[in-house]
Amino acid sequence: MMSSKAQEKDLIVSKIRDGIVIDHIPAGRALIVLRVLRLRGGEGRIALVMNVDSRRMGRKDIVKIEGKELSDDELNLISLIAPTATINIIRDYSVIKKFQVKLPETVKGVVRCRNPKCITNQPREDAVPAFKVLHLDQPILQCQYCGTYLTIDDINAQLMGER
Amino acid sequence: MMSSKAQEKDLIVSKIRDGIVIDHIPAGRALIVLRVLRLRGGEGRIALVMNVDSRRMGRKDIVKIEGKELSDDELNLISLIAPTATINIIRDYSVIKKFQVKLPETVKGVVRCRNPKCITNQPREDAVPAFKVLHLDQPILQCQYCGTYLTIDDINAQLMGER
Repeated sequence: MMSSKAQEKDLIVSKIRDGIVIDHIPAGRALIVLRVLRLRGGEGRIALVMNVDSRRMGRKDIVKIEGKELSDDELNLISLIAPTATINIIRDYSVIKKFQVKLPETVKGVVRCRNPKCITNQPREDAVPAFKVLHLDQPILQCQYCGTYLTIDDINAQLMGER
Repeated sequence: MMSSKAQEKDLIVSKIRDGIVIDHIPAGRALIVLRVLRLRGGEGRIALVMNVDSRRMGRKDIVKIEGKELSDDELNLISLIAPTATINIIRDYSVIKKFQVKLPETVKGVVRCRNPKCITNQPREDAVPAFKVLHLDQPILQCQYCGTYLTIDDINAQLMGER
């Protein structure tokens, strides 16, 4: 009999014709990844496991999405949420490309500055939020207008609709 | 070689010691079910498949949550989001109980009335939102204070943080 770990692995590698597998997501972040990809389940098949064992990371999440392609903006967002993530691109039942996400140098128009006085939060101004990406232990964003820092928790909370 | 359908099935039935499997969720609603259960992935293992084939329903979602027990309030919420859902309760590696969710007669304190003038939406009043559950084609809630109807889409949007 297979262990439950082996079966979870099976699900994730089970054949889809085209799509992506996002592996090595930090444990607990898979739902945020789905959220930033604006997947609500109206599309192809989606499979997700959370908190499964990982040799490299202790625990991790994995997401598999049938029929999905990733834009550069989406890759940048994933790199902020899940800097350890590995992307597997599947075409015609084979993994044709596998790579680790890479933090961009700047992020623009995706998250809001958390400083209410920042020019990007003034309704009459047209300033698009823009951040420099710093990478200490975790990615940190610094607003290019007011210098305010956003941690990964700030970003998560925004993307999950809490702030 | 197993078909991908068989492997998805495997994931969901793979052994967990204690927990629940929520099967026959209408396709696309699994994330809302996780949301109402306030699962963010900080708990045990979670597995989820969306838009998989179902003999009974065409397409369906399935959620498996390790170490989770459901309160009556949570069951009521699931019944609104996913009236077709079947709950499997797993204890000591076996399914010890299997049942279909049942719509409650009333729902209290869980969703807000969408009428801004309703007494439950007045900051100075203490009225707790309460709804009678009507079941036409889909569940519909009727506010017990002002009579306003809430459709399943209104409920979903509220729970997904859009309204």
